[in-house]
Amino acid sequence: MPLDPAPLNDAKGVFPIAPTPFHPDGRVDYDSIDRMTDFYGECGGNGMTVLGVLGEAPKLDGAEALEIARRFIRRAGSLPVIVGVSAPGFAAMRSLAQASMEAGAAAVMIAPPNTLRTDDQIAGYYRQAAEAIGEDIPFVIQDYPLNFTVVMSPGVVRRIITENPSCVMLKHEDWPGLEKISALRRWEAEGSLRHVSILCGNGGLFLDFETERGADGAMTGYAFPDMLVDVVRHALAGERDAAHDLFDVHLPLLRYEQQPGVGLAVRKYVMMRRGIIASDTQRKPAAAMSATARSEVEYLLARLAKRDPRAGKLVG
Amino acid sequence: MPLDPAPLNDAKGVFPIAPTPFHPDGRVDYDSIDRMTDFYGECGGNGMTVLGVLGEAPKLDGAEALEIARRFIRRAGSLPVIVGVSAPGFAAMRSLAQASMEAGAAAVMIAPPNTLRTDDQIAGYYRQAAEAIGEDIPFVIQDYPLNFTVVMSPGVVRRIITENPSCVMLKHEDWPGLEKISALRRWEAEGSLRHVSILCGNGGLFLDFETERGADGAMTGYAFPDMLVDVVRHALAGERDAAHDLFDVHLPLLRYEQQPGVGLAVRKYVMMRRGIIASDTQRKPAAAMSATARSEVEYLLARLAKRDPRAGKLVG
Amino acid sequence: MPLDPAPLNDAKGVFPIAPTPFHPDGRVDYDSIDRMTDFYGECGGNGMTVLGVLGEAPKLDGAEALEIARRFIRRAGSLPVIVGVSAPGFAAMRSLAQASMEAGAAAVMIAPPNTLRTDDQIAGYYRQAAEAIGEDIPFVIQDYPLNFTVVMSPGVVRRIITENPSCVMLKHEDWPGLEKISALRRWEAEGSLRHVSILCGNGGLFLDFETERGADGAMTGYAFPDMLVDVVRHALAGERDAAHDLFDVHLPLLRYEQQPGVGLAVRKYVMMRRGIIASDTQRKPAAAMSATARSEVEYLLARLAKRDPRAGKLVG
Amino acid sequence: MPLDPAPLNDAKGVFPIAPTPFHPDGRVDYDSIDRMTDFYGECGGNGMTVLGVLGEAPKLDGAEALEIARRFIRRAGSLPVIVGVSAPGFAAMRSLAQASMEAGAAAVMIAPPNTLRTDDQIAGYYRQAAEAIGEDIPFVIQDYPLNFTVVMSPGVVRRIITENPSCVMLKHEDWPGLEKISALRRWEAEGSLRHVSILCGNGGLFLDFETERGADGAMTGYAFPDMLVDVVRHALAGERDAAHDLFDVHLPLLRYEQQPGVGLAVRKYVMMRRGIIASDTQRKPAAAMSATARSEVEYLLARLAKRDPRAGKLVG
Repeated sequence: MPLDPAPLNDAKGVFPIAPTPFHPDGRVDYDSIDRMTDFYGECGGNGMTVLGVLGEAPKLDGAEALEIARRFIRRAGSLPVIVGVSAPGFAAMRSLAQASMEAGAAAVMIAPPNTLRTDDQIAGYYRQAAEAIGEDIPFVIQDYPLNFTVVMSPGVVRRIITENPSCVMLKHEDWPGLEKISALRRWEAEGSLRHVSILCGNGGLFLDFETERGADGAMTGYAFPDMLVDVVRHALAGERDAAHDLFDVHLPLLRYEQQPGVGLAVRKYVMMRRGIIASDTQRKPAAAMSATARSEVEYLLARLAKRDPRAGKLVG
Repeated sequence: MPLDPAPLNDAKGVFPIAPTPFHPDGRVDYDSIDRMTDFYGECGGNGMTVLGVLGEAPKLDGAEALEIARRFIRRAGSLPVIVGVSAPGFAAMRSLAQASMEAGAAAVMIAPPNTLRTDDQIAGYYRQAAEAIGEDIPFVIQDYPLNFTVVMSPGVVRRIITENPSCVMLKHEDWPGLEKISALRRWEAEGSLRHVSILCGNGGLFLDFETERGADGAMTGYAFPDMLVDVVRHALAGERDAAHDLFDVHLPLLRYEQQPGVGLAVRKYVMMRRGIIASDTQRKPAAAMSATARSEVEYLLARLAKRDPRAGKLVG
Repeated sequence: MPLDPAPLNDAKGVFPIAPTPFHPDGRVDYDSIDRMTDFYGECGGNGMTVLGVLGEAPKLDGAEALEIARRFIRRAGSLPVIVGVSAPGFAAMRSLAQASMEAGAAAVMIAPPNTLRTDDQIAGYYRQAAEAIGEDIPFVIQDYPLNFTVVMSPGVVRRIITENPSCVMLKHEDWPGLEKISALRRWEAEGSLRHVSILCGNGGLFLDFETERGADGAMTGYAFPDMLVDVVRHALAGERDAAHDLFDVHLPLLRYEQQPGVGLAVRKYVMMRRGIIASDTQRKPAAAMSATARSEVEYLLARLAKRDPRAGKLVG
Repeated sequence: MPLDPAPLNDAKGVFPIAPTPFHPDGRVDYDSIDRMTDFYGECGGNGMTVLGVLGEAPKLDGAEALEIARRFIRRAGSLPVIVGVSAPGFAAMRSLAQASMEAGAAAVMIAPPNTLRTDDQIAGYYRQAAEAIGEDIPFVIQDYPLNFTVVMSPGVVRRIITENPSCVMLKHEDWPGLEKISALRRWEAEGSLRHVSILCGNGGLFLDFETERGADGAMTGYAFPDMLVDVVRHALAGERDAAHDLFDVHLPLLRYEQQPGVGLAVRKYVMMRRGIIASDTQRKPAAAMSATARSEVEYLLARLAKRDPRAGKLVG
């Protein structure tokens, strides 16, 4: 089955993971989707990913999910949009994947169900999923053991890439994960693995070194994607110290955002304070921020603003 | 908010868990749904449960799930139908719950997401879920640690029942679980816990003793629900030896069906051989039976037929 | 490094898993060790395994463990004794393994630590463990996912066997596990895997079919190892119906014993009632039997005695 | 049973978690133990903790563990030493706890076995453990879900403290965990919970805010405990900005050390480079550092040295 040349194989830079903005009453806030999409483009993003874990995808019903994907895609224009289509069964995965591609998505992203353990189970699942959605649809592997409890060795990632021509990218958020990037790029250099794009998640916590190991950039939800863009640009230009200098300035806040569960609340709050989305509402079940947590974030923003003026331009 | 008297609080007997029958090409087989529903009623079932784990619910898309629930409910007539509505988020749970109740369901069943650990997390989840679907909708707790990895102490079950007037039933499939039934019934006798129905799962593997401990019957998918009906009837009538005698005759096959993963394949196969459904097709991802496994099931059926003639009436 | 011809590669029959008997005050009961060892030999056991999970090994301190292993070995005479040496680190594993072999053990058994996930991690662990204990010490793989949460695909078991000449046996207690036995024996028939003994655990719950799939017998703790011996003998002699007939008679009690956690209490209780050990005491932390559970076991024994007279010869 | 006034209830400051130093051939390096102990005292540590997870405790055999504990205690003089005594069974736990106290330990630390799930199981375990070691031995709760997979709600921690007078401290390394500290201190302020010391782990990743939430300091293994001492001193003195300024300078390295698995290798490497221990050898099984990882650590040290001169004084 012929696969169109998928330019995502060579993607570099930053694909922010977009949260799904809600109104305080829980309805989807489409105006904020538009504003956020514009913001990602203006700050130098190379694409974006929607309906991921951060996007509260499991809390949407099927019709909403597709409507949200369509809105992002339409607004994004020429920027490629990757749509998370992970689902417990292949029926729902296929219908969302195909509808997303028809709407203009660049690729879909698939996370493994948390029941998978062995190499054969993991590779077999991706083989079945690729068949189920259709082998002409480019897909991204989401490798996120902390959240999904599925551990993929480098060898399994190679197997998935090799067995599925439609696999175009690895969203890498193993932890620790630096050696995995090195192993994959070494195999590629040796000729035993074809090239795919590697974009890193985990809130960007190791982005400074991940790019040095061979990653192409970031795919994560840190509320300052404009900083991620600059770090990746420095890194790909070989400006090591400059990349680290900027990264280190943001690390205290970035680390605070990277807390499991409550992290999404922090991100939505900061994006609201930056004027990117109108409300930090999450749908239930959700981990909320306490008043103390909010004041801690404000303190971190104030400290950050002294060294990165972008953190000083807040609203509300 | 007033809750209609929910007769499920006092339910006794057997509510078979219905698989979802598919045609060999993966489409839903509605004729088999009708035949299976009729069979459950004819064999003395007191209700039925649809769209559970056994029903391959996660492999259905939202529209299919509701259509299937409606078909079962319509055919079941006066028999109460419980609809599984477990979902990662409350939006999908609420919409399926409300649509099911409008279609005539007697109650919904909710399993905990596998991220829950502490007592507070579990009780909080059920509190939020009950609010989300609407507190006028009766619900069943599904307590199945082997599958969901969520362990509910007896105290947590009491807390859920006490905090949620709309909780009407416990689907009990902890393992080991006999002492949990005793604890709940002891609290009830002491007056510290209101009465709810307890129906047992786990393929019926401990049904012979569960009824003696105070359970009201079975809610499980063993392919001979007619046997479960007889065992519960004997047990509730105090005919202990008769209950065990019949149960023991089925135990070799029942144990074979009770294997995780492959168990559903066995059940669909036996139901097909009994003429209840037309095909044993499962949707992917699925664990299939090997030819050897099929011959093992045939051997068990042949042995069973010598002592329970129902196992001798096969088709195909 | 030369490995002595290890006859365990070809072991057949039943190796009971021995519990560790304690006095009511928690001291090790060495007289019961002797009586139990004699019983295993008299009932036709082909060896025995000590200091496994069932043997409450983690509750012993190092000196006790070795003393217990020595007592079993001395009393067992020519019967091969396998000693469980699983430990979180290789220092303790090596010292117990080497001391056990010096005392006359036939082999050691190694379970995987429950942190292992990927094929490479599992195979790597066994490689390191085999080196650590010394490659002249025969070892048994314990494959028990329900307890250890480590899932070994058939391919990983093959890899461990192939990479470690000192691996002589698989203690198989995957669930479901029948297809795994078939896969390993198929590879052996095809010449891609050398022969090792496969003895099955899981309380014997599938022993009737496991032997038909190619297993060599049982290694488990069911309190009637004399029944297991007869079933395996029938099975290896091709007397299929006889094997199943006897197995089915015991299945109600066997299933009751096979409950996680509380199962050990049941086994010790039945062994005490059979006069094999003096007390059913367990060390803490332990799951105890309620009075109701004891009466249920007595009921099962009474029913069993009608069809297997061995269950009628009770003491105390 | 009377409990001596346990001054650890009021402990403040930094208790470094000590790694166990080995010679390159795997033998314990007692000279490095002495040097490290002296270093902890000189840099302002208020005590120390030995034989924790970081101390590779599971890789030691029983005799080694006790010998190591004794060496630390003797050298530490008046500095209180806490000894990790976690073990799968109470026999080994009791013998190490009692021998450690006889050798002069100030308290012992107990982690939960990773099989515990419900509140009752967790509280019950600590109750049994406290009885097993003797209720006159002060103990520390280790609350580290990422490593042990046991999740303790604030209510469970309160229950353990309340039910066990010999509980003197919480080693807090939940993640996220800030709200847990606030909840415990709020209960203390309200009079529903007695005071215990709370020292924080997780490599110190949130130490800057943990002290603000009411924690008394740190108990962790970051290779610059002298920095932790300064941060806690600033924090307890109300010098918020100074605490954060220093903390932020170290955060890039601290974050790098905080990687699961490989973190210990990094810590031992940095401690070797600082001249505190002679070798960064770990016992197997161990995650080693690649050459690239070492160069990354060197880069981080070089960057750190520009702002904290302590990072510039390296050896080897």
